[in-house]
Amino acid sequence: MNQLENFTFDELTVGQTAEYSKTLGEDEIILFAAVSGDVNPVHLDADFASTTLFRERIAHGMYTGGLISAALAMKLPGPGTIYLGQTLKFERPVKLGDTITVRLTVLEKIAGKNHVSLDTTATNQHGKTVVSGTATVLAPKEKVRMESPTLPDIKIQR
Amino acid sequence: MNQLENFTFDELTVGQTAEYSKTLGEDEIILFAAVSGDVNPVHLDADFASTTLFRERIAHGMYTGGLISAALAMKLPGPGTIYLGQTLKFERPVKLGDTITVRLTVLEKIAGKNHVSLDTTATNQHGKTVVSGTATVLAPKEKVRMESPTLPDIKIQR
Repeated sequence: MNQLENFTFDELTVGQTAEYSKTLGEDEIILFAAVSGDVNPVHLDADFASTTLFRERIAHGMYTGGLISAALAMKLPGPGTIYLGQTLKFERPVKLGDTITVRLTVLEKIAGKNHVSLDTTATNQHGKTVVSGTATVLAPKEKVRMESPTLPDIKIQR
Repeated sequence: MNQLENFTFDELTVGQTAEYSKTLGEDEIILFAAVSGDVNPVHLDADFASTTLFRERIAHGMYTGGLISAALAMKLPGPGTIYLGQTLKFERPVKLGDTITVRLTVLEKIAGKNHVSLDTTATNQHGKTVVSGTATVLAPKEKVRMESPTLPDIKIQR
């Protein structure tokens, strides 16, 4: 994803879709724990997790929330989007190795205010919904086309 | 936060509160960008951010969502909590150096199902609300008291 391009409010159409996928590795769990401070053992401790309903380590629920926000910011509407609200229903756990695909669908455009609502559904590699919900955003007025910023390397020292 | 202890469904009372605070540094922005894949320049590029409504770099909205989920998982009800749903209204931006405090308040207990709803309000160091919303969780049945897992060191190589 080296080039970023947005859709302005005027360019968006009801029914328009976009997808964004990411695979959950051990690194993602550790980084999400570090950034949020949530070191709950169901995410980090395989022995503890084996005693839970899920029987194995699972992703933080809000990790998938982060993928939904990334899809909005990077794909549809893309750069310049301002996040106003989100509903999230956590339907199934996300497990190590799962590839989560967020599918966005434009539901409604509210002219004048430039607000847009989108269906935000995250599914796993088996096609099962893991998180469902709706986003509300302020869509960009101006076209943006730019190189994607690059991140510094991150090393987890085990 | 070296010791984790939860509140079981039976122990929770309507009106019970808990707080959880974290300060946003450059590291948190980079780690959230890495884990979500959201490298939107409003978070990472000071020059681009200076051209936006916010005039400076801001946190990913879902970073504060992550703090809310951490508060639920670590504090109230704590370990063993299963996240069912969350609404989020993004009211103000979170800027570098801001200290965000999530305050949780038990709104309702639904017996039989062990569901609990909580008000989830995040404020900045000026007392202004940055994110508001409501969480729904399945509260733990069993008491948990345990040492908090520790994370490996994370180095950002600038």
